Amino acid sequence: MNLASEQRQWNRLMDLAEIGAIPGNGVNRGALTAGDRAARRLMVGWAAEIGASVSIDEANNLWLRVEGTDSDAAPVLTSSHLDSQPKGGRFDGAYGVVAGLEVITALHKAGIVTRRPIEVVAWTNEEGSRFAPGCTGSMSWAGVHPSDYWDDVRDHNGIYYAAALAEQMAAEADLPRRPLGSKPHAYVEAHIEQGPILEAEGIDIGVVTGIQGSRWFVVSISGESAHAGTAPLSLRRDAMIEASRAILALQEAMYDPKDVLRFTVGRVSVSPNASNSVADNVTFSIDLRHPEAATLRVRGDMIAGVVQGAMRNCEWSVRETFNAKPIEFAPRVISEVERAAENAGFSHRLIPSGAFHDAQFASRVCQSGMIFVPSRAGISHNPAEYTSPSQLAKGTEVLLRTVRALAD
Amino acid sequence: MNLASEQRQWNRLMDLAEIGAIPGNGVNRGALTAGDRAARRLMVGWAAEIGASVSIDEANNLWLRVEGTDSDAAPVLTSSHLDSQPKGGRFDGAYGVVAGLEVITALHKAGIVTRRPIEVVAWTNEEGSRFAPGCTGSMSWAGVHPSDYWDDVRDHNGIYYAAALAEQMAAEADLPRRPLGSKPHAYVEAHIEQGPILEAEGIDIGVVTGIQGSRWFVVSISGESAHAGTAPLSLRRDAMIEASRAILALQEAMYDPKDVLRFTVGRVSVSPNASNSVADNVTFSIDLRHPEAATLRVRGDMIAGVVQGAMRNCEWSVRETFNAKPIEFAPRVISEVERAAENAGFSHRLIPSGAFHDAQFASRVCQSGMIFVPSRAGISHNPAEYTSPSQLAKGTEVLLRTVRALAD
Repeated sequence: MNLASEQRQWNRLMDLAEIGAIPGNGVNRGALTAGDRAARRLMVGWAAEIGASVSIDEANNLWLRVEGTDSDAAPVLTSSHLDSQPKGGRFDGAYGVVAGLEVITALHKAGIVTRRPIEVVAWTNEEGSRFAPGCTGSMSWAGVHPSDYWDDVRDHNGIYYAAALAEQMAAEADLPRRPLGSKPHAYVEAHIEQGPILEAEGIDIGVVTGIQGSRWFVVSISGESAHAGTAPLSLRRDAMIEASRAILALQEAMYDPKDVLRFTVGRVSVSPNASNSVADNVTFSIDLRHPEAATLRVRGDMIAGVVQGAMRNCEWSVRETFNAKPIEFAPRVISEVERAAENAGFSHRLIPSGAFHDAQFASRVCQSGMIFVPSRAGISHNPAEYTSPSQLAKGTEVLLRTVRALAD
Repeated sequence: MNLASEQRQWNRLMDLAEIGAIPGNGVNRGALTAGDRAARRLMVGWAAEIGASVSIDEANNLWLRVEGTDSDAAPVLTSSHLDSQPKGGRFDGAYGVVAGLEVITALHKAGIVTRRPIEVVAWTNEEGSRFAPGCTGSMSWAGVHPSDYWDDVRDHNGIYYAAALAEQMAAEADLPRRPLGSKPHAYVEAHIEQGPILEAEGIDIGVVTGIQGSRWFVVSISGESAHAGTAPLSLRRDAMIEASRAILALQEAMYDPKDVLRFTVGRVSVSPNASNSVADNVTFSIDLRHPEAATLRVRGDMIAGVVQGAMRNCEWSVRETFNAKPIEFAPRVISEVERAAENAGFSHRLIPSGAFHDAQFASRVCQSGMIFVPSRAGISHNPAEYTSPSQLAKGTEVLLRTVRALAD
């Protein structure tokens, strides 16, 4: 018998989707914004309904906890994130958090208490679209970097991560604090696939085997500003022209005949960004991903040379801001997810993750795994992102069974 | 005998430069900002000291007027603008306005009244760096477009031109209104050269013969947003890659072996501008200039074809936002400027203008001309912009003599 409620979960997701709603059923809910705070307050309210305890750590990760029969046992964690891309969808991140909430809600309603405690976490700033890089909450928790490591990162409006974090911590002064870091028994995260495979094959559940590695870089090209009407082209040091040349040279250098390597220049800022001034600085991001550590290392290490080769008379720098190595999930968690899907009667297959997730850092701390549900047309980071209520409910049922198995 | 006061003029310029001051002696005073308003209030105060009347028209151009012995006679206009580039200097625009003020101040102090009235104008939004294109004030006045023509143009923060204009008009509700448009006897504008010629040749005064033509375009490239980690490169419609290709193709197509054509991509905006999302839209500006109408027409008309040729699978559009044909100044005004420089004992030469100026539109209405003073190292649209107090005073003395000759 299935315990998770399709309707309750869908209603909660739709309530969350109203916070930061944008046209086309999209969501724009940046990390550490008023919208993020409002979404977290909804979670706090829902936790109160079932008597789950709520706390936050110094990285602003939000923890909901229900006790087990053995409250000293290491807990089972399930989680995802509530922040979104600027033109994001309703399910990326929010689904995993609401699914975790649905697991503890359904168990509570059924009067089931597991041996181990269960914790549901909403990690801070997974997307990294307001403050790059992403996963700052889970990285802090996993001890990859201290929680003040990103203090000097600024958003599009020049606001520092430190300031935004302090503002949110102050706004949540009423919530109990817990220490940063912990040693759970296991970690499982439910998420939409963000790719087309499950839908194309008509499969309910993706049993995730691992996550490809990601490296993020910031490239800065510096020339000299000049008057667009007077400065001869032969004398200019035009950062926009040189940046365009660098981007195309990189695109060529990153060509992969197997089409497995992912290379993206998604964020560009130009100074002074006036139509009648030659640009004196162009800064752009590079997001590079591959499932194999060696390929990711070699291709990423090529970037500086390619940028240098594209320069004529501008200065340049390349700085790496994020490096998440490819990981493989724990065999025990993978097999529990498979068994849960099988027992619930849902079709399933093994699948790697193209997107990175907080699970990438959890896997450094404890045995970890993920559950994917289909994404319509593979669309994500886009308002058109969609997974049906019943597809979501199936994923949550598998999550519930997996968490229960790991917690008993 | 020279009438213009070097010290008074320099002090006023330095007072203006404090409004919107940025590091390195620069100025950031966008059109229709609080800084712009503050600068205009300084002008109003200085006008009051000599009993000049003040008014504004519906395009927010600021008019100072001193009567002549024949107040029905068509006035002589002298002017420039008070707005600056985001990383601009202290002299571009501000010098011409302060020089005009110095002309009427010096004449007033000397008890000299010309036959014709003299009007000093600060035109609205010459630079076009906050609201593109520039010269909206002088274009409105010259009847090129109605003053609400740019209402839908937005600045970097999404503020509409109409809203910024209405805010400034409201903040200046105490100033008398005058109708838009007029038919002056003549127009003369003093300005820094913004190029290296006068300094290199050790010449005091540039007698400007005309202004090269300018065409501004906005190119929009539309693809599809996608997740940076999952979308295969072969299936992407990446607006940033295609925009880079278009910019480089344009740079190549606009190559001019004589290095007279000016081609600049200075402003770029990317959507959603997140490092882990493929860009669905990139919009960039093109500023194209040439002294010959035929060349400017042919090169400008090539742009759409070049952009189209650079596309693989993105949509594109090219929109022309500004078209100022090359103009030649009136022989009468040119010869009056030459005579004034000669009589004052200053070295001078004929010179074309690479930058556009409000004089380009004034020349449609009445006989017009310009006076250039040297720019150190030709640097402009940059905090390092510099012209010495005595160089500026020489330009103003020539302006005074020219205005007087035209007004008597």
